[in-house]
Amino acid sequence: MTKLAIIYYSSYGTIHSMATRLAETAESAGAEVRLRRVRETAPDDVVQSVEPWAAHAASVADQPVAEPADLDWADAAIFGSGTRYGHVTSQLQAFIDTLGPLWQEGKLADKVYAAITSTSTQHGGQETTLEAMNTTFAHFGGIIVPPGYTDQVKFNDGNPYGVSKTAGSDLDDTDRAALDHLVTRVLMVAGKLRG
Amino acid sequence: MTKLAIIYYSSYGTIHSMATRLAETAESAGAEVRLRRVRETAPDDVVQSVEPWAAHAASVADQPVAEPADLDWADAAIFGSGTRYGHVTSQLQAFIDTLGPLWQEGKLADKVYAAITSTSTQHGGQETTLEAMNTTFAHFGGIIVPPGYTDQVKFNDGNPYGVSKTAGSDLDDTDRAALDHLVTRVLMVAGKLRG
Amino acid sequence: MTKLAIIYYSSYGTIHSMATRLAETAESAGAEVRLRRVRETAPDDVVQSVEPWAAHAASVADQPVAEPADLDWADAAIFGSGTRYGHVTSQLQAFIDTLGPLWQEGKLADKVYAAITSTSTQHGGQETTLEAMNTTFAHFGGIIVPPGYTDQVKFNDGNPYGVSKTAGSDLDDTDRAALDHLVTRVLMVAGKLRG
Amino acid sequence: MTKLAIIYYSSYGTIHSMATRLAETAESAGAEVRLRRVRETAPDDVVQSVEPWAAHAASVADQPVAEPADLDWADAAIFGSGTRYGHVTSQLQAFIDTLGPLWQEGKLADKVYAAITSTSTQHGGQETTLEAMNTTFAHFGGIIVPPGYTDQVKFNDGNPYGVSKTAGSDLDDTDRAALDHLVTRVLMVAGKLRG
Repeated sequence: MTKLAIIYYSSYGTIHSMATRLAETAESAGAEVRLRRVRETAPDDVVQSVEPWAAHAASVADQPVAEPADLDWADAAIFGSGTRYGHVTSQLQAFIDTLGPLWQEGKLADKVYAAITSTSTQHGGQETTLEAMNTTFAHFGGIIVPPGYTDQVKFNDGNPYGVSKTAGSDLDDTDRAALDHLVTRVLMVAGKLRG
Repeated sequence: MTKLAIIYYSSYGTIHSMATRLAETAESAGAEVRLRRVRETAPDDVVQSVEPWAAHAASVADQPVAEPADLDWADAAIFGSGTRYGHVTSQLQAFIDTLGPLWQEGKLADKVYAAITSTSTQHGGQETTLEAMNTTFAHFGGIIVPPGYTDQVKFNDGNPYGVSKTAGSDLDDTDRAALDHLVTRVLMVAGKLRG
Repeated sequence: MTKLAIIYYSSYGTIHSMATRLAETAESAGAEVRLRRVRETAPDDVVQSVEPWAAHAASVADQPVAEPADLDWADAAIFGSGTRYGHVTSQLQAFIDTLGPLWQEGKLADKVYAAITSTSTQHGGQETTLEAMNTTFAHFGGIIVPPGYTDQVKFNDGNPYGVSKTAGSDLDDTDRAALDHLVTRVLMVAGKLRG
Repeated sequence: MTKLAIIYYSSYGTIHSMATRLAETAESAGAEVRLRRVRETAPDDVVQSVEPWAAHAASVADQPVAEPADLDWADAAIFGSGTRYGHVTSQLQAFIDTLGPLWQEGKLADKVYAAITSTSTQHGGQETTLEAMNTTFAHFGGIIVPPGYTDQVKFNDGNPYGVSKTAGSDLDDTDRAALDHLVTRVLMVAGKLRG
């Protein structure tokens, strides 16, 4: 049984929805899944001052928080983050920054990795943010599994580097199909590598 | 009078339309413009075997071809290319590869640079191809002027790295406004730098 | 008088040394400089558990912390950060993440930007981390001024994207010359743009 | 038996030496190897006008040229190119540009990919050129296998994105060890994926 860690940060809920879909599809496919939000690092008064941010934070408050051990445990991992000027959020980066001890022991290597993102403008980081995560995976010594155009849905969502979504609406059929394709592919590769 | 070189490669005509719009707007703004297509490097039988490619090649056959001297002449340059797997076409790269002598003399430096692209899928290189050109401009020692979100139109076309368009349709109002904004901004910066 | 903000994060002191050199050179050249370290976001017990980290933190404890207002004030800014897997530290990213209000008002745009970094391995982010900052500057609508090879020293330090250093030693003559060149160039461009 | 295609372009011979080492190590490990240089696209008088370029071209004139079919045949591929301003040479890009038909049929997908490069300055594309190839592999739907720091040699050659070398000297022990590690790892992953 392939172990999949989904490590994400979501401010307002879009990435949370995407990550949840990945988890559901992976479980249906027989994977063991850890769906983990990274710790909020913004001061609480800042979070509370932005209504949709506070609302989303409250709605996930009882859900488990990502620990480096979740990545150690996993055969495969999908990272998710909204963009901040073409890169991941500082919250996800803060989690990544805690991985030094695992990295030094070589325990991030040889796992299968992929990435998802969402941005508010159409081309304001949907590619660069995914590529930033792929760069991070290279440092891990990961096996990077971008979707390319390995399914017809990729000509609809149009992103070969991972799965992206323009924020501000619920997941639609294309989003779900692209997410399902990504996670199925990640599990397929991870399954073969486990032998 | 600011001298602007627009150096581009277009297979089927989308980049040509975008580049032509840039040239017209720049001339209206009082710039001296060299609109230059780069030399076709694909074998002629390959070009002729693809109808829209052959048609576009025929339509621009009498237009001037870019030479390194055009870049030497310019105060500012905008490069344009469709994407090839997240990077510029080999035709534009072939032109770039001929710039070694100018580069060694420092003659590509301190000019103002920006980039445009077009891709067939929505997120299949609209960011990475522009960023690839921005990387090249860094090697030149260029002053890179991406548009960011310095005008309301950028929230419509949505690309802070340059101007991009999904291929397969004529320029629309958003395309034209984004191109006009880019070239006007490039000329503004180049004008100030000329003193 | 050109206003230069140097915004950096340093764990063990290498970036701090580089940033301090930039500040000294800029002041000698007549610029008004704000040298600002970004706020530490790692838990204090984590910082204290790593001796050189704790020592550096103690040594800069009384130095001013970067605020978004410092960027608003500036004509030009140089960002500095060590690498974390090919990207900036979460500390610098956390500062960047607070810039939303300024960004929305367009107040990050049209300034001159450049970047410095340091890494522990020779090719473990010396280019990608600088390029990550350049990507961020594109979102700002910044005027990006990478050094390219616009001075002979760039063939010695060898980095056209900014200035980088392999961590673990004091600044040497090449480091100082490359930093001096970068900041002098940034001030020159910023001076011309101010008119 | 794993089928490995090594597709490279070398002007003066450094990449050729690196590619040859990859081929020898792969064959010793029992792989079936196609070592293929891409077609020269620069005009012959240009090649002949640069002595070391002409000399290298003459020395490989009888060696087989890469065809798209070599990639179709392969289970794994390593691409090699010197840098041109942070990107691959137009010669390698020209080969990549001919892959459209294979790409459309999905025949580039699900193979294992990695990259090597060499540059004349220390940080003048050793990371960005490898990352450019990794971006291309994402478009292919490839399984990207960067080395990360999965062996002690990677702390010596210091490049997690692939293998790089500063041009102008023969392969040394670190170069050979880094190349051997890369190709061994690529074959290991490809072997597992073949089942």
